[in-house]
Amino acid sequence: MTRSQLEEEITEVIRPTQEERSYINTMAKKILAAVKECTGDEVTAMVVGSVARDTFVRGDRDLDIFILYDPSLTHEELEERGLTLARGIAQSFGGAYREKFAEHPYINATIDSIDVDLVPCYAVERASEIKSAVDRTPFHTRYISERIRGLVDDVLLLKQFTKAGGVYGSDHTTGGFSGYLCELLTLHYGGFAPLLAAASKWRPGVVIDIEQHGKKVFEDPLTVIDPVDPERNVASALTLDRMSEFIELSWGYLKKPQRAFFFPPPRPRLSREEFRKRLAHRGTALYAITFSTPPYTEDTVMPQLRKSLDSILNLLRQHGFVINRADCQMETKQSMLLIEMLVDSLPAVRRHMGPPVWSIKNAEKFQGKYIGRADTVGPFIEDGRYVVEVSRRYPLAYDLLTSPALLGVGLGKHVKQSMTVQWDVFAGEECWNEHFAQFISDFLQASSPLTHILRGPGD
Amino acid sequence: MTRSQLEEEITEVIRPTQEERSYINTMAKKILAAVKECTGDEVTAMVVGSVARDTFVRGDRDLDIFILYDPSLTHEELEERGLTLARGIAQSFGGAYREKFAEHPYINATIDSIDVDLVPCYAVERASEIKSAVDRTPFHTRYISERIRGLVDDVLLLKQFTKAGGVYGSDHTTGGFSGYLCELLTLHYGGFAPLLAAASKWRPGVVIDIEQHGKKVFEDPLTVIDPVDPERNVASALTLDRMSEFIELSWGYLKKPQRAFFFPPPRPRLSREEFRKRLAHRGTALYAITFSTPPYTEDTVMPQLRKSLDSILNLLRQHGFVINRADCQMETKQSMLLIEMLVDSLPAVRRHMGPPVWSIKNAEKFQGKYIGRADTVGPFIEDGRYVVEVSRRYPLAYDLLTSPALLGVGLGKHVKQSMTVQWDVFAGEECWNEHFAQFISDFLQASSPLTHILRGPGD
Repeated sequence: MTRSQLEEEITEVIRPTQEERSYINTMAKKILAAVKECTGDEVTAMVVGSVARDTFVRGDRDLDIFILYDPSLTHEELEERGLTLARGIAQSFGGAYREKFAEHPYINATIDSIDVDLVPCYAVERASEIKSAVDRTPFHTRYISERIRGLVDDVLLLKQFTKAGGVYGSDHTTGGFSGYLCELLTLHYGGFAPLLAAASKWRPGVVIDIEQHGKKVFEDPLTVIDPVDPERNVASALTLDRMSEFIELSWGYLKKPQRAFFFPPPRPRLSREEFRKRLAHRGTALYAITFSTPPYTEDTVMPQLRKSLDSILNLLRQHGFVINRADCQMETKQSMLLIEMLVDSLPAVRRHMGPPVWSIKNAEKFQGKYIGRADTVGPFIEDGRYVVEVSRRYPLAYDLLTSPALLGVGLGKHVKQSMTVQWDVFAGEECWNEHFAQFISDFLQASSPLTHILRGPGD
Repeated sequence: MTRSQLEEEITEVIRPTQEERSYINTMAKKILAAVKECTGDEVTAMVVGSVARDTFVRGDRDLDIFILYDPSLTHEELEERGLTLARGIAQSFGGAYREKFAEHPYINATIDSIDVDLVPCYAVERASEIKSAVDRTPFHTRYISERIRGLVDDVLLLKQFTKAGGVYGSDHTTGGFSGYLCELLTLHYGGFAPLLAAASKWRPGVVIDIEQHGKKVFEDPLTVIDPVDPERNVASALTLDRMSEFIELSWGYLKKPQRAFFFPPPRPRLSREEFRKRLAHRGTALYAITFSTPPYTEDTVMPQLRKSLDSILNLLRQHGFVINRADCQMETKQSMLLIEMLVDSLPAVRRHMGPPVWSIKNAEKFQGKYIGRADTVGPFIEDGRYVVEVSRRYPLAYDLLTSPALLGVGLGKHVKQSMTVQWDVFAGEECWNEHFAQFISDFLQASSPLTHILRGPGD
C-alpha cells in the first residue's frame, strides 16, 4: 500500500533534515571513536535506538550509545568500569552530565544540545542470556535495522500519529506504545496504512507473534511477542485505555484522514473564571488533595499516585460517598489528586447490617450491643437480618479527607512519606491552582483523543 | 411440658369466660337450627373456625358458619341459593348484614354484637375434591377439633403471643401466622413452650409435615403441609420478615419470659414537634406520596401499594437517588407511600455509558450523537468503553416524584386509577399527617418486635 498525499506531506515535515541526520550521526561516530580510543578492543560501543534505525522524528535529539562489556564481569565491575568510562567520555566532550538509574545506573549527558545516554551493558550472545533488561536493546536494534529499510517513513508517521494522539510512550504515566513497539507493528503489517486498517478492527486480546515462537499466554490487552525473546510481551505496558484510544484514532483516521491527527489542536486551557463557571454548572463536589512530590522519577512516583488515589477513593466509597471521576498529576514541586463526587454531604445516620435473626448467638450479641442506645434506631429486621441505623462518623467528605484516617489507607510508600509531613485539601473552586491549570482543564473537559481532534481548537 | 406460672396467669386472662363461651355457642346453635328449619335435610350447616375448635381468645366475637351444599350444584346455583338463604337468616335475626367476597360471595352479619360470617360452600367428600378454597375449611375444623383437646390453652397463648408481636394474621398486610397455622404448630410440637423452643432454632427452609404425605417442595421460608391437602402449604403467606420476627420473639421469650410478650407496651406516637426534631437530626430526605385509597378491601389494596412503592423506588434509583428506607400504609380515606432518601439533590450532570470503542459501528454512532453538543462532556474512554456526561433530567427528587413519569411505572391497577385523579408529594417536615401519625412514628423509630418489647414504654 502506498502513502496518501496527506501522508507524504506529513512525512516531508517530520522526516529529519539531511543536516540534522548528519549532525547527529557525526556526533555518534565521534563518541564511538572516543570509546575505542579509551578501551581498545576490550569493549564494543554501538548506537542503538531510533538514531541507529534511522527512525527518529525531526527535532528528536536523543542519542543512545550502549557500551558492551564481557558477561564474565560482575555487576559491580560492570557498574564501576562502565560509569567511569562514560563519565570520562562525557567530560571529554565538555558536556554536562548526570547519573541516572533504570535497572542499572547510566550516564545522561548533554553534548552540543544533543541528549546522550551512555549505557553500560553486557555483550551476551543471545537475547535469552541477558542479565538485565538493557542487555536486550542491542538485539532490538539489530533486529529492526536489518528489516526496516523501506518502511522508515511509515514508522515516522506512526510515531507522529501516536504522539499526537497521546498514546506514545511506554512510561508509567502514559502506558502507551514504545518506539520499538511502533517499529514492530509497522514491520508486521507492512506499513502505516495497513496497520491502521488492522488496528481499527482490534479488540482486547490481539496476539502478534512475528517469529512464531511465543511460549507464554499473556493477559494483556495487546500481546506482541518480542522477536528476540519468546518469553516477553513488548506491549505489556500498554493499558486498555491507550489501546482503545489507538483503535478509536485508527477508525477515525481511516474515515476522514486529516492533518490534525498528526498535529492536533492545543487542548483548551481554562481561566480561573471559566473553571469556576463550569464547576458551578456541573453541580458536583470537587476536591483536590495536594502534597510535595516525592523526590523520585516519574516512573516511580506516578504508579504510587495512582495507587494512593485508588485507596482514597475506596475509603470515600466505604463511607458512602459516590465518585464521579478522579485523576492524579505529578508536577515538579507538588502532586495533586483530583476527586469529583456526586455529593459531599450525607445524612447523620447510616445503616449497619447485623447477623441473621436465626444466628442466635450473634443475634443476641447484636441486640445487646445496640438496644437502648440513644444514638441508634433499631435494631429492626429486613430480609431476616438485623439492621440498625447508627451515627455516621463522617457526614462531610471534607472531614474524612482531612482526618488521620487518610494515612491509614494503602498509599504508595513515598507518597505516604510526603503526606505524613503535610497534605492540603481544597474544595470546590478553591481547587484551582495555576500549576495544575492544564490538568484541571483537561479533567473538566474530558474527551477522547479522537473527540478532541474532531472538535478542533476551542471547545 | 407444663405451662409456667406466667403462662398460667396469662391464660387466665385470655381464656374466654364461661358466659362468653355459652353466649356465642347459644347463638351458633340458634343459627344452625334456623338453617335446618329453612332447608330441611337439603343442606348441612356447621360451625367452623376458632369457636368450633374452642380456640378463641377472650373478646373475640367472630362466628363462622358454613352452609354445605351438594357438589352437583353449579357455582351459580350455589351462589344464588346460598346467598338467598344467608340473607334470610341474617334478616330473621334482625342483624345488619352485607355481602362480602373471598373466592366466592358470602354474607357478613352483625347479630347481637357478634360478627357472623355465613358462607355457602360445597360438601365434598375429600379435601382433594374441593371446588374452591372455602370448601377446605370444614375439613380443617374437623381435623383440629378431633386432636386439639388438652392443647386449647396453648393455642390461646400462641395466638396472644403472635398478636402481641405483630405476626398474627395471614392477610396481605401482615403476612404472618393464621389461626389454623397456630393450631397446627401447637399440635405438632405438643404445646406452646416446646413450639417456642423449636422456633428459636428455626432458619428459613423449615418443613413440617404432620401427616407425612407432602408431595411438593415449596420455596417458602416455612412449609407446613396441610394435613387435609398434601399439595398445600398452610404457611405460604408467611413472609421471611414475619418468620424472622417470630424466631426472634421465641428466643427472646425463652431467655427472659415476661408479660410484655403477651401485652406489649404501646408503640410510642410522636408529636409533630418530636417528628420535626428527629427528622432534622437524621438529616435524611423524607418524602410522602398520598392519594385516595382505592375503594377495595385491604387484601386487594395492600399488595398494590407495595408493588407501586417498589416501582417508584426503582424509578428513583434509576435516576441516581439512594433509598434508605420506605414503607406504605393504607388508611380509610388516604394511602401513603413514605420514602426516605440519603440525598434528594444531585449534580446537573450524570454519566452515560456508551459502547466499547472496538464495536466500531456503535462507537461511530455514539461519537456522532454526542460530539459537539454544548451540554455534553466527552465522549471519553474508560476501560475501553465510551462515557459521556450529559445533563441530568431530574436533579431534584421532588421534580421526579411530581412528574408524569410516576404514572408510567408499574403501579397497581387501582392505585394507578386513584393516582391518575391526583397525588400529592410532601417533603421533609411537611410529610407529617395526623391521620398517619402512628405509621410515621413507627417508621422513624423502626424497631423489631423484640426490641420494642425489651425497651418497654416510651423510647
